[in-house]
Amino acid sequence: MSPAASRRSATAFAITLLILEIKVPEVGTHGDLWGALGAQWPSYAAYVVSFLVIGIVWINHHQVFGYVALVDRTLMFLNLLLLLVVAAVPWPTAMLAEYLREDEASHVAAAVYSLLMVVVALTFQALWWHLTRTGHLFDPRVDIPAARATRLRFALGSLAYPVTVGLAFVSAPLTLAAHGLIAVYYAFNQVPVPTRD
Amino acid sequence: MSPAASRRSATAFAITLLILEIKVPEVGTHGDLWGALGAQWPSYAAYVVSFLVIGIVWINHHQVFGYVALVDRTLMFLNLLLLLVVAAVPWPTAMLAEYLREDEASHVAAAVYSLLMVVVALTFQALWWHLTRTGHLFDPRVDIPAARATRLRFALGSLAYPVTVGLAFVSAPLTLAAHGLIAVYYAFNQVPVPTRD
Amino acid sequence: MSPAASRRSATAFAITLLILEIKVPEVGTHGDLWGALGAQWPSYAAYVVSFLVIGIVWINHHQVFGYVALVDRTLMFLNLLLLLVVAAVPWPTAMLAEYLREDEASHVAAAVYSLLMVVVALTFQALWWHLTRTGHLFDPRVDIPAARATRLRFALGSLAYPVTVGLAFVSAPLTLAAHGLIAVYYAFNQVPVPTRD
Amino acid sequence: MSPAASRRSATAFAITLLILEIKVPEVGTHGDLWGALGAQWPSYAAYVVSFLVIGIVWINHHQVFGYVALVDRTLMFLNLLLLLVVAAVPWPTAMLAEYLREDEASHVAAAVYSLLMVVVALTFQALWWHLTRTGHLFDPRVDIPAARATRLRFALGSLAYPVTVGLAFVSAPLTLAAHGLIAVYYAFNQVPVPTRD
Repeated sequence: MSPAASRRSATAFAITLLILEIKVPEVGTHGDLWGALGAQWPSYAAYVVSFLVIGIVWINHHQVFGYVALVDRTLMFLNLLLLLVVAAVPWPTAMLAEYLREDEASHVAAAVYSLLMVVVALTFQALWWHLTRTGHLFDPRVDIPAARATRLRFALGSLAYPVTVGLAFVSAPLTLAAHGLIAVYYAFNQVPVPTRD
Repeated sequence: MSPAASRRSATAFAITLLILEIKVPEVGTHGDLWGALGAQWPSYAAYVVSFLVIGIVWINHHQVFGYVALVDRTLMFLNLLLLLVVAAVPWPTAMLAEYLREDEASHVAAAVYSLLMVVVALTFQALWWHLTRTGHLFDPRVDIPAARATRLRFALGSLAYPVTVGLAFVSAPLTLAAHGLIAVYYAFNQVPVPTRD
Repeated sequence: MSPAASRRSATAFAITLLILEIKVPEVGTHGDLWGALGAQWPSYAAYVVSFLVIGIVWINHHQVFGYVALVDRTLMFLNLLLLLVVAAVPWPTAMLAEYLREDEASHVAAAVYSLLMVVVALTFQALWWHLTRTGHLFDPRVDIPAARATRLRFALGSLAYPVTVGLAFVSAPLTLAAHGLIAVYYAFNQVPVPTRD
Repeated sequence: MSPAASRRSATAFAITLLILEIKVPEVGTHGDLWGALGAQWPSYAAYVVSFLVIGIVWINHHQVFGYVALVDRTLMFLNLLLLLVVAAVPWPTAMLAEYLREDEASHVAAAVYSLLMVVVALTFQALWWHLTRTGHLFDPRVDIPAARATRLRFALGSLAYPVTVGLAFVSAPLTLAAHGLIAVYYAFNQVPVPTRD
């Protein structure tokens, strides 16, 4: 198992830890469990969005590393950094779910959530720049000049994340929805690794 | 490690998180620990049933993906969706265990548990339909027309899950028992992937 | 990744969950943290023993499955059962740590801990019997008659576990120590898989 | 999947469990979430440092085991021991974060944290000594006399850890910072496995 594969395992693990943040609702003996469950909707929404976000990072990471033949120390370190921020996602997820319906705190929680996503995107960018800059880490199938040419488009695509930080101060639920949409967008519009024909 | 293998790892993590929902019973200094342990039986029952349910999904997923040679974006997305619902199982498990002996709440908890299983079954169905519809994702051993022919039988088999939603409003313990029986049934009566001879 | 390998991943995960059961001791602002840490010794002892127990099961399982070439449905089911009981270990571990210094409850907690180990041992036995009985699941290196001949010795070795159930009613700390010793014993005196020369 | 690979998986799990120790800060309805988040800085610092420490152990372990062709029982046991101490890291991490700003308790927490790191370093040393002493466990690329010659330098490098135990009684935040620096140092100055040309 390669270190990249281990890292994917760790991502897989981070994704399953998300459910631990959803608590069993407490009701009295004759309490209304349906009502208590309904009141928990921010937890479900945050779970689904964070699951998609981590999942898409995981899939894209897998796609890219399918073309990586060599791992140098910098790549390993960037990989570890990416894991550090992705593994942290359950924490702002729980915080956003808890404060989503409160006035001021909801903006703070949404901003922190968005900021973490900015860091995830930046780390992924750094990884992609390192791979395309060095070139020799890719396997021979990869068209390196074409891969370099994707960098600007890839960077522009990541600009959606800083925008969500601003959006956090408008509306926290909207911010959460935006992250869900970005995840689905990246699921269907990923920058492909260009290969020689 | 293929993405399908990573997903199986994630399932493996989800399955081990189940134990975290069983709490150490609290008794006074001269309290009766045997009694307190006995009173926790819904937790043990829910643990065993959910473990079997996730385990059988895991085994069947493994069986199917042993014949998958290519992964397209839709398959990856369906796989992620299946993981999203399977990874959520610890939460309704804990809820069902907590409310199993209460009047109204037990029916709600059992219904939510059953509804999640309906979604698990639907996602697995979607995955199977996608694989048999496209065909080219399977490796050459698979008899694709025969695989397509299993779809109706496979779908009928999944009808047991909606029935458990109804059963939830009759009896929550019975619903839990039904899920255990369905899991064991699927352990021994899985739809095999048809192969060419 | 084979299902056996997935199962090992799950075991690896169960083993890391053990640490979650050790709580950070609470002391006042000028409280004595050394003292509070010392008072937690049952948690450390239980952590180390359970870690060794799961670890040795993991190593032995790995040793045996290194010779398994085919997996039938019964083997998969026994494997799932073994995982079900091994993954449950963090719960009696936490309970034994909590009640180790209490009079009556310590005996109950130690008995439950030992009973779970009996079930782990029985499941491992069943797995070994199934492998040696069927024979064709092993790869060609294995000397099947010799493997069958180890069954009695292997079963006798497992008799230590029922004895710890009785020991639980004598002394809980002694029971924990016994499990640690058995784990170390099995680390150095494993039944080897007999191979043809 | 080799046992070493399984162990790496387990390390990957331990690393993602760290986030569970960071709690969502509690504020009143009109409370100041920014302030509450800022007050949690010891948790973030401890998370990052422990993540790096485990991550670097993981990377170095991976590096070394890339040259291991055979696994004997002692190596397996040392591996399990290394996992036992690495998997325990989330616990002193949470303790150090909780007591970092308290007078006496901070020194105790930092000393325990440092002591665990001493044990991690000793176990890694023992593993390296066993590999270089036996020699035949390495694959043929390894220059065994040269590998033996690295042992003293490697051991001297580990002397930084006992020093942090002393530093704990001077300042806990400084101790945490020192562990972060050591981790980064080892990320860039690892003892390479000497190979024949």
